[in-house]
Amino acid sequence: MEGADRNRTEAGFRERTRVADAHEILREAVAGLEGPATERVALTDADGRVLAETVTAARNVPHYDRAAMDGYAVRAADTFGASARSPAVVRIGAGRVDPETAVRVHTGSEVPEGADAVVMIEHVEELEAMGELEVEDAVAEGENVAPAGEDVEEGQPLYEPGHRLRPSDLGLLRSTGRERVVVAERPTVGVIPTGEELVTHDPDPGQVIETNGLTISRLVERWGARATYRDIVTDDAEALRAAIQRDLTKDVVVTTGGSSVGERDLIPEVIDDLGEVLVHGVALKPGHPVCLGIVEDTPVLALPGYPVACIVNAVQFLRPTLRWLEGAEPDPHPTTQARLERKIPSEPGTKTFARVALEERDGERVAIPTRASGSGVLSSVALADGWVVVEEAREGIPEGETVTVENWEVNP
Amino acid sequence: MEGADRNRTEAGFRERTRVADAHEILREAVAGLEGPATERVALTDADGRVLAETVTAARNVPHYDRAAMDGYAVRAADTFGASARSPAVVRIGAGRVDPETAVRVHTGSEVPEGADAVVMIEHVEELEAMGELEVEDAVAEGENVAPAGEDVEEGQPLYEPGHRLRPSDLGLLRSTGRERVVVAERPTVGVIPTGEELVTHDPDPGQVIETNGLTISRLVERWGARATYRDIVTDDAEALRAAIQRDLTKDVVVTTGGSSVGERDLIPEVIDDLGEVLVHGVALKPGHPVCLGIVEDTPVLALPGYPVACIVNAVQFLRPTLRWLEGAEPDPHPTTQARLERKIPSEPGTKTFARVALEERDGERVAIPTRASGSGVLSSVALADGWVVVEEAREGIPEGETVTVENWEVNP
Repeated sequence: MEGADRNRTEAGFRERTRVADAHEILREAVAGLEGPATERVALTDADGRVLAETVTAARNVPHYDRAAMDGYAVRAADTFGASARSPAVVRIGAGRVDPETAVRVHTGSEVPEGADAVVMIEHVEELEAMGELEVEDAVAEGENVAPAGEDVEEGQPLYEPGHRLRPSDLGLLRSTGRERVVVAERPTVGVIPTGEELVTHDPDPGQVIETNGLTISRLVERWGARATYRDIVTDDAEALRAAIQRDLTKDVVVTTGGSSVGERDLIPEVIDDLGEVLVHGVALKPGHPVCLGIVEDTPVLALPGYPVACIVNAVQFLRPTLRWLEGAEPDPHPTTQARLERKIPSEPGTKTFARVALEERDGERVAIPTRASGSGVLSSVALADGWVVVEEAREGIPEGETVTVENWEVNP
Repeated sequence: MEGADRNRTEAGFRERTRVADAHEILREAVAGLEGPATERVALTDADGRVLAETVTAARNVPHYDRAAMDGYAVRAADTFGASARSPAVVRIGAGRVDPETAVRVHTGSEVPEGADAVVMIEHVEELEAMGELEVEDAVAEGENVAPAGEDVEEGQPLYEPGHRLRPSDLGLLRSTGRERVVVAERPTVGVIPTGEELVTHDPDPGQVIETNGLTISRLVERWGARATYRDIVTDDAEALRAAIQRDLTKDVVVTTGGSSVGERDLIPEVIDDLGEVLVHGVALKPGHPVCLGIVEDTPVLALPGYPVACIVNAVQFLRPTLRWLEGAEPDPHPTTQARLERKIPSEPGTKTFARVALEERDGERVAIPTRASGSGVLSSVALADGWVVVEEAREGIPEGETVTVENWEVNP
């Protein structure tokens, strides 16, 4: 149990790892793991999945020279100098376009061999009785023709492994001849709420309703992984050990609560005993008492029990872990620029996540801190639209500054 | 068939409705519809769902006066003036805190009746043999106590109908005593790809692989609704009519293709025949030939067949329709500020959606137009990170301007 103890003092943590360093330590450890297997899925099942193959276009899009307008396919040279007053006259043919002939085409139909342009129907006069056509406007070579490969060329690289597929990607993939893709299996996550004070309902004084496991398991599903939301485990080393061991078949184990340095914070020691503690104590607020470890090639992330601390750490460490296991990088959070309505305090050296609500006022976007502090105050997250990250080098952010709000929980 | 015809001329649309007006017309029509029924679901199944009830807190959070530190519960007045050199001495008791007594508490435990503050364990000296406690630091009333209702007060309004639930909301709801919530059923959407040129695979020249239905049905699912992705329907009025009628049991019918004013654009007339065309032809680019209608109290949205035009219109009109039916408003898209690398052209009077890719260059975010134009060029969306909206009043956006990119397809 030395690993966990080395950083423990009577007053708390001896030192706290910087967020960026904790990230790097975790990423290196996760990069060495096998991660979920891959599977071949139909495009209809592939939205949100992470590609595990390089995709190049199997064919041109369009796959033929395509008329972009209703009209007549011609040789552009035959229309040189044509105008309404002095139209060029050509024969109406069919099939191949020979010199001084034109063939009727519709938008989307193939431009016949021999033709290199399309005259719009509005710019011709059909002299049907004579089998002739008056062209009243000259066209340049290539005009109103979408040549094969204009959108995508056969062999063109489209996506690299690690790309998370979106609906428009699926359309593009199918248009280039794909029906199935090789993707990473969705990672599986065991979510284990811990704490002797936790109950599922009807709490007595001193008891707390379990919410962390609920919230984290729903976030895991939003992030494209599969959560198993376990029953509450009490603060007992043997019970915690058994619960973690049971979920080592998952790709990730997450616990909530019991991650700090108090008497009842047993999880770091359990992780240390079963495997390796990578980081215990991170310089972030709220939520410094997080513990990141690896047990039998499975990342075990022990998140703090205070609800906001738990969420902040899940977003910081669990979300990227899921992506890294899939061979991807986490997408940056969507952000909003806004004017800060009230000062945000922070301690230099600590990365601070200040929850804010966004409002429009007189056409201006304003960010209103929902609560100055309080890692347990779930409403400060749930009633917020995102958070402002105060970097370690800064000591708070003054009122009136334009800040970047991370909308980490935005709806699609 | 008059409605559809009134706006049709030989050259195309007589007039195009402004996007904002089309929105308003559609919203008014949808607001009068019944929308999906409501259902009561467990919180574990409620992520992303839209509330159909007002939620007020059924209890205080915390629900008792909660010790925020390990230490002793006291009456603050008993510690007045206490210091390490001149400690206050009180009796160690149990149960109720009477004057000049202190009761041991742990973080999270109930502050006993009679006490109004907690002295941290670090600031006391336990004289166990004598049953006494030296308090070495004065505490103010309320210090280290989280009073009942500090986070959320019983009866406090939390959410209104129309709120789309996120994971952190679920935690807050459960902490206030909720286990189930009343939400709108997920809207159902029939997605019908149409066009005689469409095939599912192995296209000959003149044929096109169906991608719109695939993309739109996956977007529908991302947007929290249930898509039924139908087989291709050819350009035949009877077949189109039957396909639309079959899906009138859905909350929304979406067709792709055949929505313009050409010979083969039959859908506006079918809608007009079965019900009412609200809007045909909108001043947006790419994608002006969209047709919005209502048939037997079901919105029928006929999206253009060019892939980009189809997607732009789905985001503009289908996404809000789903929200309106649920009694909600669409969330604004996440956005990114970036410097425009190349001029975006646009016609005044037309709302233009210019696809851009985002790149970091020397610490600056740059938006690079993926293609100057081309409503059919699916790669211009699929290989982009979002689009820049050029409002009707503007004629393009010059190079170098800071633009707002809508990341309408962002991954969670």
